[in-house]
Amino acid sequence: MGKLEVIAFDADDTLWVNEPIFIKTRERLESFISPYVDINKLEKKVYETEIKNLRLFGYGIKGFMLSMIESVIELTDGRITGNEIQQAIDLGKEMLEHPVELMPGIEQVLETLKDDYRIMMITKGDLFDQESKIARSGLAEHFEIIEIVSEKNEETYLKVLKRNKIDPSNFLMIGNSPKSDILPICKIGGRAIHIPFHTTWEHELISHHEKNGIEYEELPDVSLVPEFIKKLEQH
Amino acid sequence: MGKLEVIAFDADDTLWVNEPIFIKTRERLESFISPYVDINKLEKKVYETEIKNLRLFGYGIKGFMLSMIESVIELTDGRITGNEIQQAIDLGKEMLEHPVELMPGIEQVLETLKDDYRIMMITKGDLFDQESKIARSGLAEHFEIIEIVSEKNEETYLKVLKRNKIDPSNFLMIGNSPKSDILPICKIGGRAIHIPFHTTWEHELISHHEKNGIEYEELPDVSLVPEFIKKLEQH
Repeated sequence: MGKLEVIAFDADDTLWVNEPIFIKTRERLESFISPYVDINKLEKKVYETEIKNLRLFGYGIKGFMLSMIESVIELTDGRITGNEIQQAIDLGKEMLEHPVELMPGIEQVLETLKDDYRIMMITKGDLFDQESKIARSGLAEHFEIIEIVSEKNEETYLKVLKRNKIDPSNFLMIGNSPKSDILPICKIGGRAIHIPFHTTWEHELISHHEKNGIEYEELPDVSLVPEFIKKLEQH
Repeated sequence: MGKLEVIAFDADDTLWVNEPIFIKTRERLESFISPYVDINKLEKKVYETEIKNLRLFGYGIKGFMLSMIESVIELTDGRITGNEIQQAIDLGKEMLEHPVELMPGIEQVLETLKDDYRIMMITKGDLFDQESKIARSGLAEHFEIIEIVSEKNEETYLKVLKRNKIDPSNFLMIGNSPKSDILPICKIGGRAIHIPFHTTWEHELISHHEKNGIEYEELPDVSLVPEFIKKLEQH
């Protein structure tokens, strides 16, 4: 491994709370479609629809809204009314304006690290949603480089690092998703710290098989990152 | 003006056909909501809804789909059924997979210019949609730099040029939208060529007042660009 020069953070559920907003929205949806359908089926149906549509919609709230609408249409055999669908759209619009709740201590962490490292954000999702959240988070000034990508895999990371003239051996990624933030970075020769979040979207989970043989660090809390990196550098 | 070094192209309705796909979709929508509403109201309602939602959705097909759904719900006083809304969603999905129709002669133009200039694409819209269209267009290899932005104004252009270490005085932009491709470039000290497309979204048009005092070139056809630039450089 080379000298650590660049530290990159994932955004959703690493810098700020995200997945709980999706869950809360689905629960509010359940409350008004409950006259029509077995609401126990909704979670599974929405997830299946999202995965089926991923190829066409990509990640983000607008795709989620459309998948949510398709799910309730299917579960009600098309009996759901336009007015009720408008309510579902309004729920999605509220998500788009939801206040950004920062992870505790994150500003202090960024402040501490930027004296010694170049600090970067790499986030996956809808360009417009993510730019809006970055602006609302008030964190933008802490980052030298901000990259919004449509997918996080080895290919995208290599492209992003190349574009910014960063060697993977000088690079560390921090995030909550083993699938998107950790494994691809380890595979291209970078370092990674996994900080699990209490809720993670099913799609972002990995099996033991996928993790097979890949080593990475895990910390319970992002506030522990600066001290951990200090120790890492002393070895 | 400095020496011309970088030539950038807008994508939608400059490299490939875009706006007619939106128009065709709206017309197909009209055909199946005509039992409910005065279809003459649809175009205006969809446009108004798109503009109202722009602040939340940004540009792109998914936002258009949601605005289309909201429009038909409102125009039918919520009487439209789930099944019919599903038909509207299916129209949108077809848009997302619509074959990319290149402007005549565009590959030859790019091929010619890249011997003497750095070639760039700057496109506005949904990250996922645009990446998908770029891949399907087969044009990616012609571009040294591809930038997808959520809005095209002076601020974004300055950011994009700075990130790529390009001075506006060495930069020329080519596009179909006076508002997004031409005026902001002229204002930051770059050069621009306007190539009008036969249909332009109302939102992209500008008034005489906005154009006031700003000079730019206009060509009827993108295939004329290489020869025009050759003459420009001889002066």
